[in-house]
Amino acid sequence: MKATAIAPANIAFIKYWGRKNHEQFLPLTTTNSMNLAACTAKTTVEFSADYEADEIIVKAPNMEDATLQPQDGDKTAELFKALDRLRAIAGVNLKAKVLSELNFPYKAGIASSAAGIAAFTAATLEALELRDQLLDKAELSRQVRKVGSVSAARSVADGYTEAVLTAEDDCYVRQIAPAEHWDLVDVVAVVGAEQKSISTSQGHLLAETSPFLEARVRYLQEKVIPSLLNGGNPDNPQKVDRPDAVKEAILEKNFNVLADLAEADALNMHAVMLTSTPSVLYLGPKSLEIMRKVWQWRADGLPVFVTFDAGPNAHLITLSQYQGELLKLLKDESEVNYTIASGVGKGVQIVSEHLESTKNG
Amino acid sequence: MKATAIAPANIAFIKYWGRKNHEQFLPLTTTNSMNLAACTAKTTVEFSADYEADEIIVKAPNMEDATLQPQDGDKTAELFKALDRLRAIAGVNLKAKVLSELNFPYKAGIASSAAGIAAFTAATLEALELRDQLLDKAELSRQVRKVGSVSAARSVADGYTEAVLTAEDDCYVRQIAPAEHWDLVDVVAVVGAEQKSISTSQGHLLAETSPFLEARVRYLQEKVIPSLLNGGNPDNPQKVDRPDAVKEAILEKNFNVLADLAEADALNMHAVMLTSTPSVLYLGPKSLEIMRKVWQWRADGLPVFVTFDAGPNAHLITLSQYQGELLKLLKDESEVNYTIASGVGKGVQIVSEHLESTKNG
Repeated sequence: MKATAIAPANIAFIKYWGRKNHEQFLPLTTTNSMNLAACTAKTTVEFSADYEADEIIVKAPNMEDATLQPQDGDKTAELFKALDRLRAIAGVNLKAKVLSELNFPYKAGIASSAAGIAAFTAATLEALELRDQLLDKAELSRQVRKVGSVSAARSVADGYTEAVLTAEDDCYVRQIAPAEHWDLVDVVAVVGAEQKSISTSQGHLLAETSPFLEARVRYLQEKVIPSLLNGGNPDNPQKVDRPDAVKEAILEKNFNVLADLAEADALNMHAVMLTSTPSVLYLGPKSLEIMRKVWQWRADGLPVFVTFDAGPNAHLITLSQYQGELLKLLKDESEVNYTIASGVGKGVQIVSEHLESTKNG
Repeated sequence: MKATAIAPANIAFIKYWGRKNHEQFLPLTTTNSMNLAACTAKTTVEFSADYEADEIIVKAPNMEDATLQPQDGDKTAELFKALDRLRAIAGVNLKAKVLSELNFPYKAGIASSAAGIAAFTAATLEALELRDQLLDKAELSRQVRKVGSVSAARSVADGYTEAVLTAEDDCYVRQIAPAEHWDLVDVVAVVGAEQKSISTSQGHLLAETSPFLEARVRYLQEKVIPSLLNGGNPDNPQKVDRPDAVKEAILEKNFNVLADLAEADALNMHAVMLTSTPSVLYLGPKSLEIMRKVWQWRADGLPVFVTFDAGPNAHLITLSQYQGELLKLLKDESEVNYTIASGVGKGVQIVSEHLESTKNG
């Protein structure tokens, strides 16, 4: 009863922030993202009578191997809970050993939890032979979401994906376009990797204290007020479904439209965070420095935009042909510790061969 | 026909952002502030047949004397328009010479325009002998507001003041408490004095493109959702009028309540700015650095909070007895270029003696 899965991290264009139902991990709105081919977690799960307790080990290039404890954080606690829940469904009564190997830094703001949770869920379902939950991608995405993360669920399908929220309060992931459709690149400018003082899970609760959360939900699906300065008439707002508009921009490969929508959405989410009680300040001084530079570079003609997840690192999205130019520009920026560049990748995959060497961690 | 007036800059606790009526410079909500005793503009206005054209000169410690032109910016254009408007009311047909002397840096984010516009308006009304508009403080505040700035109007009354917005769309300023009531100090940490890429006047127009502006107005006067993490019940929001709550905190000298309200309001305003189209980013990297430090200092027990107007400089508000300690802490912060400390000051005043030396600037 052993299986291995690989899953990518992803970067959201329309962010997931705030939940409609905390227990079901239902988001307030549809969100979307692209998978990061270069940032993956490979997770092996084995259930065996040899094990006396569940054990979860994480390996990553930026740290010593870590054995996770349920009290390490909300997300970690959810992994242990998920093992219990899925074992009950499978009628299995064996403890598990989980080994998760990241090929990119852990807890550095590059969605290691998304990659890790997606790979963990798929490997656990395969090891428990819960094929009904595993083989249908929509159902797999629900399972990943229930482990505690809509962000991780977006890593299930290939390429560009969306976590759809239906009128019936179902939330599952489907593909917008395959990875080969459009050669976007995410250049992550890592500016800091401090432990967050407010975890993402706490942040999702605090979102409800922001006076702007309701307005964010309306904004994502309702009116867009044109700028007076740009000659628009504010009495004549347009109706725009922003997740749909992002989807269309991806399908039409319209970089500028995607750039405007994604940047606005990142700022919108961070404005909600900033106005929570207490204020959730994930952006740092260096985040703002990079953001201003990216705006300048784009004004100078380089197709690039910037987005931030729940952390200070800047995700610079460009077309693959400009990746070299962008990396060159970033080399001169002293606030950037290092960069990780990634094209668009596949979603979660079960790895058929079992590497015995991983058995004992 | 010559008069001199002195007026202070001020720092807002509940900010003015967005207008109900742009032509009347009517704010969307009541706002309030404290006057800065140490940051004043002294403005002399003279109408004379000797002058062939209106001339406005500004002197400040951080620059060469400047002769303003109507095209220098929205606020400057408003000054020239105001001269025409007030001359018409007075039935005077003489050109004016205006000399405005700031005792603090010009355009460095310390509300030089508020001090300057308040002093300019009072001196002009006195020189034109428009006593009906001058002698009643509420009416004077309306006149200052109509020159183009609710912020400047708040400098009219003494000490702690509020610009009230009435149900009849009148907006005038009245005192909350005199300067002697409470010895707060504003320590301005000047981190940058770049020219803003989006002027405050443009910002007030752009505010309408933020999906959060309506929610900001509701937030200021309606419900406060308690934090789940702090044990509150989100289904049981409290009704709070935030400008009134600030007023009460001032009257009761409740530093912590004022701190929480004012910091939240500054972040709320900057969240509206950030989510405008285009995004209005007045905070800089150094603003965030200082903000984080202030939060740490307060957590460590120092009574201090931070607020930002439409610019990157941090206004650190403390009690006068802690000013020395705060200045000492700020000395170690390399991102701070210099500091200006100011207690609470009087409002606008007409200066009776005319200094002939200022006549020819």
